[in-house]
Amino acid sequence: MRILGIDPGLAIVGFGFVDKVGNKLTPVQYGCIQTEAHTPEEERLLHVYEGMVQLIDKYQPDAVAVEKLFFSRNVTTALPVAQARGVLILAAVQRGLPVAEYTPMMVKQAVVGYGKAEKKQVQEMVKLLLKLAAVPKPDDVADALAVAVCHAHSVSLNSKLNEVLRK
Amino acid sequence: MRILGIDPGLAIVGFGFVDKVGNKLTPVQYGCIQTEAHTPEEERLLHVYEGMVQLIDKYQPDAVAVEKLFFSRNVTTALPVAQARGVLILAAVQRGLPVAEYTPMMVKQAVVGYGKAEKKQVQEMVKLLLKLAAVPKPDDVADALAVAVCHAHSVSLNSKLNEVLRK
Repeated sequence: MRILGIDPGLAIVGFGFVDKVGNKLTPVQYGCIQTEAHTPEEERLLHVYEGMVQLIDKYQPDAVAVEKLFFSRNVTTALPVAQARGVLILAAVQRGLPVAEYTPMMVKQAVVGYGKAEKKQVQEMVKLLLKLAAVPKPDDVADALAVAVCHAHSVSLNSKLNEVLRK
Repeated sequence: MRILGIDPGLAIVGFGFVDKVGNKLTPVQYGCIQTEAHTPEEERLLHVYEGMVQLIDKYQPDAVAVEKLFFSRNVTTALPVAQARGVLILAAVQRGLPVAEYTPMMVKQAVVGYGKAEKKQVQEMVKLLLKLAAVPKPDDVADALAVAVCHAHSVSLNSKLNEVLRK
């Protein structure tokens, strides 16, 4: 199965397509959609949406995993990101793709095995698990791949659980 | 010109189409798009988006005015509303419509003449200005019409300003 991991944002959307065959994970394509700071918000939303639609149509994922927003304080920063997250989820659901959500803590737990791991540790594990030559830049790209890896683990766990339950 | 006012939300999206001819405002259609609480978030976003696309295609507005979100504390409530706001703005910008934003204070100032007016006062003024038999329900519908009225005033003010500047 092909998983698309997304780290939502308005300025930068990180994305990572990862193929999962058994327990083997292979990166297919990753990068980011960027929007200009000085363009109107509505045009940035359109750009983010259209960019994601093109990527989905090109790489045909089977499932989408999106990082859940977590903002303890700064609502002003949170709202534009949430709006962008809305149009990203729309792009996926319009194509009938299942959308899973993971909190940053769940991603860390799945990738590093420790929910309070440092950003650097997560990035190194992503590099290791996906056999990348270097940690992808910017951070948003590594984060998106981490979400995809997290979903891959979650899918494996669920299928194992179902096997056990069937016995 | 026909103005579409929107009060964004995930559970309820208020909308109001208002025709402005000179200083005369006429309500064309108003109501709300509602989504079920117990359906997945992504389906609710799709429903909100598709509902708005249908309304725009049917009533062909020339401009869209959306209430700006203002949340001083509760981020948990703010994020789903912001996501819905994202897909609503997307529906407008995909059809090439200009999108204006107004804070609740700007709306109150434009409709009642006082930025700290009570909700009730705004609703009564909307009823009066649009010659409605009753205050539209739920509140989201009256709010959407208030945003449309606010935009109509802003357009009038701008054209007057331009006239003065041209002299």
